[in-house]
Amino acid sequence: MRSMTSSPNTETGRARLPDVRDVEGAARRLRGKARLTPLLESALLNAETGARLLIKAEPLQLTGSFKFRGAYNRISRIRGARRAAGVVAHSSGNHAQGVAAAAHILGLPAVIVMPDDAPAAKIEGTRFWGAEIVLYDRRSEDREALARRLTAERRATPVPPYDDRFVIAGQGTVGCEIAAQARALGAALDLVLVPCGGGGLIAGCALALEHASPGTPIYAVEPEAHDDTKRSLEAGRRTGASSPEAQSICDALRLPMPGMLTFAINRARVAGGLVVTDGEVARAMAAAFRHLKLVLEPSGAVALAAALSGRIELRGKTVAIIASGGNVDPRLFCDAICQDSNMA
Amino acid sequence: MRSMTSSPNTETGRARLPDVRDVEGAARRLRGKARLTPLLESALLNAETGARLLIKAEPLQLTGSFKFRGAYNRISRIRGARRAAGVVAHSSGNHAQGVAAAAHILGLPAVIVMPDDAPAAKIEGTRFWGAEIVLYDRRSEDREALARRLTAERRATPVPPYDDRFVIAGQGTVGCEIAAQARALGAALDLVLVPCGGGGLIAGCALALEHASPGTPIYAVEPEAHDDTKRSLEAGRRTGASSPEAQSICDALRLPMPGMLTFAINRARVAGGLVVTDGEVARAMAAAFRHLKLVLEPSGAVALAAALSGRIELRGKTVAIIASGGNVDPRLFCDAICQDSNMA
Repeated sequence: MRSMTSSPNTETGRARLPDVRDVEGAARRLRGKARLTPLLESALLNAETGARLLIKAEPLQLTGSFKFRGAYNRISRIRGARRAAGVVAHSSGNHAQGVAAAAHILGLPAVIVMPDDAPAAKIEGTRFWGAEIVLYDRRSEDREALARRLTAERRATPVPPYDDRFVIAGQGTVGCEIAAQARALGAALDLVLVPCGGGGLIAGCALALEHASPGTPIYAVEPEAHDDTKRSLEAGRRTGASSPEAQSICDALRLPMPGMLTFAINRARVAGGLVVTDGEVARAMAAAFRHLKLVLEPSGAVALAAALSGRIELRGKTVAIIASGGNVDPRLFCDAICQDSNMA
Repeated sequence: MRSMTSSPNTETGRARLPDVRDVEGAARRLRGKARLTPLLESALLNAETGARLLIKAEPLQLTGSFKFRGAYNRISRIRGARRAAGVVAHSSGNHAQGVAAAAHILGLPAVIVMPDDAPAAKIEGTRFWGAEIVLYDRRSEDREALARRLTAERRATPVPPYDDRFVIAGQGTVGCEIAAQARALGAALDLVLVPCGGGGLIAGCALALEHASPGTPIYAVEPEAHDDTKRSLEAGRRTGASSPEAQSICDALRLPMPGMLTFAINRARVAGGLVVTDGEVARAMAAAFRHLKLVLEPSGAVALAAALSGRIELRGKTVAIIASGGNVDPRLFCDAICQDSNMA
């Protein structure tokens, strides 16, 4: 499937950076496997913001988040004898479920390293897809070392959560779909807002949109203490967050630093970083509940939160917003949506 | 747009019964106006039931329920001078918002008669679409008489919630879409489960599916005390519910008796009635939250509840389930989804 021509200036160390052809290849491989999630719209949210908000509903993706896309694309590239050895990933959340589902569908065994205090629903969701789960103690064990050891012992293939060419390309299919769906609505995109942790989703989308919607600025949205991508974009080099140890309800976006590959893509293509507070995230979850009938997890709601709380000027614009996932504990969800209705 | 040939044997009193050509006409009129809502699927719910459940997600419809379809189709048929006089409807919930949105989009004024104790969110949702709202006291005033008086005074056109040819045909577009979406998945439907209040949604879908999926049995699902359609189907004539005064969290399905037009359609086409308890409905809402990331209101969850609680044998079957709406108060929603997680 891959084009045999090589691209100049896309090397970072050993790993070749993905380009738009990798995203197109991923889109072909994911056809009929990943769901084409809808682009939702609410007349009321449009009226409130004075903008046209087109919300990409990745909670409706298989496993409840965009992570299935990158995992499937990565695992589908494993050939021959390596297939039987399977894959190894470490994650406490959405990546675990995405890898487990993709491996199951492609017929490879999967081992997922998860913290022993991960939410029961996420462990259960991962186990449902037939993955072997290795639990570790978050305080005394090093999950990266454990995953490396399991990978070596089994001669398995690691599936990184973001810093991988095929993972980035798979997540980029979200951007391809947004561009095509906006076109079908006759809408030209003025702005794109994307939740950002390690930066795989926004990197893939930036590659896709650079071609499908050239000139449209793309912003990374992070929880305020975990603003490593925003700070790195401002500094022009990878740097850490302001308060990496700070608590946040956005568990999936608490990462120490942007990825190496992802930042190499994002530094030239992402217009800037925006941050949101936990309160703004909770209000965005409540708005999605009321006006979109969509369940968002906190990390999945940060881009919508940036739009609804006026973190960037939107008036008169058509804005694509990625809602990246919906795997959330019922109590946390209810705290968010009822807290907002108390304040209203 | 309407075919000029008349159909024999489709008269009930003054009103002609709709047929499949009316549904096809509605589908043409609704194209680009109503949303083509997705048919969702959860591998986990499939595994739990041993069936393939295809869930039609009408909470994602404009105004949060299927009601927009029938209202738009009805109002789009108003011609000439009657347009300026506008429409009148009475409803405390989804029909109110559907009529208000359809009238706004078609450029007609709308008056909605609502009880003064209707949820603030529903009054606000109706007002958002520019409708004039006339509140009445549920204990001392007769809403039907009030709506009739307003209709006469203003020479307006009434928009009935279900007993109307164009309303039924509009709701039937849900059935057209289900048939086409199932075909696109390569799935043949063995069974269709539809929430049932006045019977407009199931009547329209029965007309559509009789042609698009001939021989597939269709069941009406009701709250257990409000089983008027089930009892009427068994009796072969319109009859009341077992306990019409009983409380139920399914507020939209508490109707005294099937509609005249809707029952004339349903008696020959609906295979039977199923009932569900409030507890089963709450568990279905929790399952939709966890596995579909979709917000369901209680009335919108009854068909899923029938499937998940084993009210009918599903094993090995492909089952279309209509999730008809998602307009629910946050507290009621949280009671449902957290109650279930306490029991788990």
